[in-house]
Amino acid sequence: MKINYRTGRQFICLLLVLFSFPLLAKSILTGEDGYRLWLKYDPVKQDQQAEEYRQQFAHWQVSGKSQTAQVIRDELENALTGLLGTSAPVAGTSGASLIVGRLAELPESLRQALKKNLPASEEGYLIKTVSYQGRPVTVITAKTDVGALYGSFRLLRLIQTHQSSRSLNIASGPKLKIRVLDHWDNLNRHIERGYAGESIWDWHKLPVYIYQRYYDYARANASIGINGTVLNNVNADPLILTPQYLDKVRALADIFRPYGIKVYLSVKFSSPQLIGGLKTSDPLNTQVKQWWQDKAREIYQKIPDFGGFLVKANSEGQPGPGDFGRTHAEGANMLADALAPHGGIVMWRAFVYANEKHEERSKQAYSEFKPLDGQFRSNVLLQVKNGPIDFQPREPISPLFGATPKTPLMMEFQITMEYLGFSTHAVYLGPLYKEVLNTDTYARGPGSTVAKVIDGSLFNQSVSGIAGVSDIGSDRNWTGHILLQANWYVFGRLAWDHSQSAADIAGDWIRMTLTNDDQAVATIEKMMMVSREVAVNYMTPLGLHHIMGADHHYGPGPWVDFLPRDDWNPVYYHKADKYGLGFDRSPTGVNAVAQYFSPLREQLSDPKTTPENLLLWFHHLPWDYKIASSGRTLWNELVYRYYQGAADVKVMAKQWQELEDKLDPLQFQQVKMAFDIQQQEAEWWRDACVLYFQQFSGRPIPEGFEKPHHTLAYYEHLSFPYAPGQSGR
Amino acid sequence: MKINYRTGRQFICLLLVLFSFPLLAKSILTGEDGYRLWLKYDPVKQDQQAEEYRQQFAHWQVSGKSQTAQVIRDELENALTGLLGTSAPVAGTSGASLIVGRLAELPESLRQALKKNLPASEEGYLIKTVSYQGRPVTVITAKTDVGALYGSFRLLRLIQTHQSSRSLNIASGPKLKIRVLDHWDNLNRHIERGYAGESIWDWHKLPVYIYQRYYDYARANASIGINGTVLNNVNADPLILTPQYLDKVRALADIFRPYGIKVYLSVKFSSPQLIGGLKTSDPLNTQVKQWWQDKAREIYQKIPDFGGFLVKANSEGQPGPGDFGRTHAEGANMLADALAPHGGIVMWRAFVYANEKHEERSKQAYSEFKPLDGQFRSNVLLQVKNGPIDFQPREPISPLFGATPKTPLMMEFQITMEYLGFSTHAVYLGPLYKEVLNTDTYARGPGSTVAKVIDGSLFNQSVSGIAGVSDIGSDRNWTGHILLQANWYVFGRLAWDHSQSAADIAGDWIRMTLTNDDQAVATIEKMMMVSREVAVNYMTPLGLHHIMGADHHYGPGPWVDFLPRDDWNPVYYHKADKYGLGFDRSPTGVNAVAQYFSPLREQLSDPKTTPENLLLWFHHLPWDYKIASSGRTLWNELVYRYYQGAADVKVMAKQWQELEDKLDPLQFQQVKMAFDIQQQEAEWWRDACVLYFQQFSGRPIPEGFEKPHHTLAYYEHLSFPYAPGQSGR
Repeated sequence: MKINYRTGRQFICLLLVLFSFPLLAKSILTGEDGYRLWLKYDPVKQDQQAEEYRQQFAHWQVSGKSQTAQVIRDELENALTGLLGTSAPVAGTSGASLIVGRLAELPESLRQALKKNLPASEEGYLIKTVSYQGRPVTVITAKTDVGALYGSFRLLRLIQTHQSSRSLNIASGPKLKIRVLDHWDNLNRHIERGYAGESIWDWHKLPVYIYQRYYDYARANASIGINGTVLNNVNADPLILTPQYLDKVRALADIFRPYGIKVYLSVKFSSPQLIGGLKTSDPLNTQVKQWWQDKAREIYQKIPDFGGFLVKANSEGQPGPGDFGRTHAEGANMLADALAPHGGIVMWRAFVYANEKHEERSKQAYSEFKPLDGQFRSNVLLQVKNGPIDFQPREPISPLFGATPKTPLMMEFQITMEYLGFSTHAVYLGPLYKEVLNTDTYARGPGSTVAKVIDGSLFNQSVSGIAGVSDIGSDRNWTGHILLQANWYVFGRLAWDHSQSAADIAGDWIRMTLTNDDQAVATIEKMMMVSREVAVNYMTPLGLHHIMGADHHYGPGPWVDFLPRDDWNPVYYHKADKYGLGFDRSPTGVNAVAQYFSPLREQLSDPKTTPENLLLWFHHLPWDYKIASSGRTLWNELVYRYYQGAADVKVMAKQWQELEDKLDPLQFQQVKMAFDIQQQEAEWWRDACVLYFQQFSGRPIPEGFEKPHHTLAYYEHLSFPYAPGQSGR
Repeated sequence: MKINYRTGRQFICLLLVLFSFPLLAKSILTGEDGYRLWLKYDPVKQDQQAEEYRQQFAHWQVSGKSQTAQVIRDELENALTGLLGTSAPVAGTSGASLIVGRLAELPESLRQALKKNLPASEEGYLIKTVSYQGRPVTVITAKTDVGALYGSFRLLRLIQTHQSSRSLNIASGPKLKIRVLDHWDNLNRHIERGYAGESIWDWHKLPVYIYQRYYDYARANASIGINGTVLNNVNADPLILTPQYLDKVRALADIFRPYGIKVYLSVKFSSPQLIGGLKTSDPLNTQVKQWWQDKAREIYQKIPDFGGFLVKANSEGQPGPGDFGRTHAEGANMLADALAPHGGIVMWRAFVYANEKHEERSKQAYSEFKPLDGQFRSNVLLQVKNGPIDFQPREPISPLFGATPKTPLMMEFQITMEYLGFSTHAVYLGPLYKEVLNTDTYARGPGSTVAKVIDGSLFNQSVSGIAGVSDIGSDRNWTGHILLQANWYVFGRLAWDHSQSAADIAGDWIRMTLTNDDQAVATIEKMMMVSREVAVNYMTPLGLHHIMGADHHYGPGPWVDFLPRDDWNPVYYHKADKYGLGFDRSPTGVNAVAQYFSPLREQLSDPKTTPENLLLWFHHLPWDYKIASSGRTLWNELVYRYYQGAADVKVMAKQWQELEDKLDPLQFQQVKMAFDIQQQEAEWWRDACVLYFQQFSGRPIPEGFEKPHHTLAYYEHLSFPYAPGQSGR
């Protein structure tokens, strides 16, 4: 058994504990604990602005008798009371200066005035200042109650961020139809790749015991436009489809429905055998088809608006149609046929690779699914991770984007921080998401961005979707780290409208969650916008990837070579040797670049035209290779970036420290402690990786950089058997 | 694979979900979520009383510069501001009407006036109204700062419960020296037998990331006099003793120290082999002794006031001295010798039994440990569960109490609800604890109560202690069910003073936690006081025991006969047959009664003199045996009690419902939902057990009782693979 001994960290920790005691010595530290997320609704402090808002919004009226209309009323009541100190719901439109409701329920004059401005989408909304009965009123209207709910949250955001409320004319509809969170939550409440406590679903106490948190989860999601939730892990337990569990699922669906949120389930492909008593799960078998049709009917009896199934099949040990000699299309279609009569969809994951295939891992999903294009039912979406490997700090886009004109592709982003420091590193994912969405696939010539592929506009597809693997857990602040709430937030905002900027969304989030102090907002926004690149630098600069610790992916593990599959081992990915570093995926190597469209293919084939931040993803380059932007050798650039990354974390931590007076004490303190950890771990990454690669480069760490704190052997012997979020529990 | 299908519950659940929606339809239900426990400090509502308190306590002064003194200041500031709307700490004693501090730090005149009233104990305190500088002041004083902290919480309780504050003269000291919570928390945060979420110790983020909850845990414990915490599961992971984890332990110890709380650890007896690189863990081996001595020194360097070790050895698969042919005394003494130079103690568990021994399980602990009396070092305490089996709803006392005049016995109570409905049944444990403590062992003649055994007074022992297996988890309300907070509370209060009444403590808890409305207090107190007997009736009436579901202990499982050890199976315990029911532990049977002192032994030998509530624990009686108190046959009485228990839950639920207007909406709603579950599960227990035993009795369910909802086969086929709290995760 390895000893978990980290002297250096111990020493730092001793200092931190000693020094941090005075900070925490107050035994009762009150303040914002993070539970309220971005829906805090604290009073608007600028008196003049508050007064203006009060005049415009204090007297409000929401029409409609649906549960959703009631949800809007509750939210406005709560929000306006908090923000403005007063909230006066009125019975009719005559006394209201804020009128909310479906277009069909508005007074005739308003209806006529507004109908031409209403967005086409069922979920879209219009917020408009108009003259009504001789006075100015603000109207929030939509085709549906849920649209009106989205519009209400939009108006509240405007107040929360202290924007002008004069002459409003905001029309907005979602660019993507299916906007879901994927919860990799097991029925025992362990979350695979979860770092914020355990699952918020208390399956044991469901369906009877209902937590307020279920409602607040729905409120938060509705506030950013998320309209679906996959409740359970893609490594699915078949019991989720038993009547006992479906009753629990129904209880959640009933809670989420008024918020416009549909419930989906991950299903195990072999469920007919495991809980159905059948001898096979062959998708072409009549009994199997019947079993799924019966199961779908049973589900829809309980949950009339059930969303559908998410399936991980023939991937990392999960069963699938391949076990019966059938294609992914045959498997997906069988499920799609069972759901179609009820309006459900299948989200079929393209995250498929197999050691036995003797094809390089990054190429396999394309090879498997490209030939199936055109064979899927119309209610099947292929769910594709943003990159061809697995949610790395940086990857090129998956070559599948643009490659299936007849099959709608759903984006799968990771929100939880499996490869990005768990819940203790401050990494804002907005820039990562935008980088992916803005990447040009060239599928239909220049301008064929990934965003246009997934929103259906490139191939004129009518179904579209995006999924984010949730970072939500039972921790009081939901995500284990307040700043990581922003990743949930930005995912939702971009799912609604991928054209928004990551910086603007960060700005909104900061104002709603942390502070409206302009200077503090600017500092934090800047910090957030660089944070991802900082992490790439101290973890996997220049296109390195998948060199994390074995299994748990905690900390550096470039030396790991003992995992049972080649393509689970870091050494498979970095290919360090005496000559150099990197994975030759160019035409001289495994030629993964061939799966991209021209001219992207040609750009990536040549190190000279490959973006520097993906250099070692596509090329195995000599240690003395000259990096164009800096003029440094590859070795020196590598070292430089590792040190720069670690140094930049210190800068971020210092910036945060300087904001102490402007922030809530609890929020400040929580993030400060996380930065203490991030600083230690960034140096751990830096030292371990530099020492490891130095074995191959044989070159010194350039002058001016401090020496690593420990030997390579020290880092190699660290072990973390209880790192959170591990799979298989 | 069994199907988890519970049609009856499904149907009830459907109704509940439908009907409960309106209750929860308000999407933002605010109120008391339970986090603040009994330290809410909401304003005293009676104006006159509040004014009186204000005059007496608003101006206060705490002397001393220690961290504990600072903790007292923080608590008073927070509490008085909340309770009285004002809190005015003053610099010297002249302006203060409330003076708090160690006797040595009080002004000379006060010191002289008070020293004779001070309790002898280092932890004791005195609260006294005296005249000082010509005006009345309240003084809280003690020998130590921690004593002053306890006194401060005592005064706050007085205010919280709206008691008179005139002419105070309260002197109090603990009757037991070691008052600890045992956390059966694993390093992966799973809690064995935990039903309120996962462990509050976030080992991964320790020692750097410190939750406010750690402080609030310490505050809550200090407020009821708990002075120790065993952080990890008795089924211990050896890694807890590695430097990496000891640094995490130190961080917690540093936080808890100012609150008078020492940290203890559960240790694995084979640690020298598992993490020390030794070939043996034989307690007589020189290297092994040296390893533990070195380890103890290492621990005390980090944690100078470390409490000591808790050990589960040679029990349920855990390693122990028996593996090396040594006695429990030899094992315990070796550890005691390692800790003694530093002032640490060993809590050695007597929960030891083995299938191989061919002695009836309830007798084995006595047989093992009685002969060792006198062989233990003076810093060893034997930790004995209250009953001879395992935390059943009702057990007789363990025969070890009183049997070891030379060895101090520590009581081990269970606070977590392993056998009592997890976190959804309202069962107040005060009456159970008191029943045990008040039981007469007759060890030194009449009056030799268990309380006198464990407080050391019976045998004039200088060390004494009590442990409660914690019901605390990461749930927002700490215990998963608000009413179960009372079990943590009553454990602490009785640990301090076992002579207090369970009803009085319940009353205090209700006033501090729920309401000061006299009528509501009376109703809830009554409900709490009967709740344990109600649960005994619907689970294990008349001395039945250990007939819960296999492994997880969720729900009824009297039919279980497939577990690998005889004495893990319910059928071993109830011994139902055509003739009758119950376990003959009288002299005609396994003669377990012989382990008790006379005249208890003789009383329990004869069904006529055995208390009816333990009848089937000690006797196998015919189905037509006449129950003295009721005149019913055993069969009819059994059925009667099961039905009565289930019916009484309905009564409790109704009483709670009627209190809606007097309670906080969130507290009301949470308990209401738990009652919904408890009602279902009480009927499940009733129906399953009555149907099961009916197979043997061959007698009908008497007239007037409703029929069971399902068949016995139905209940036997229910399965709960993800019931919370299971061991081995």
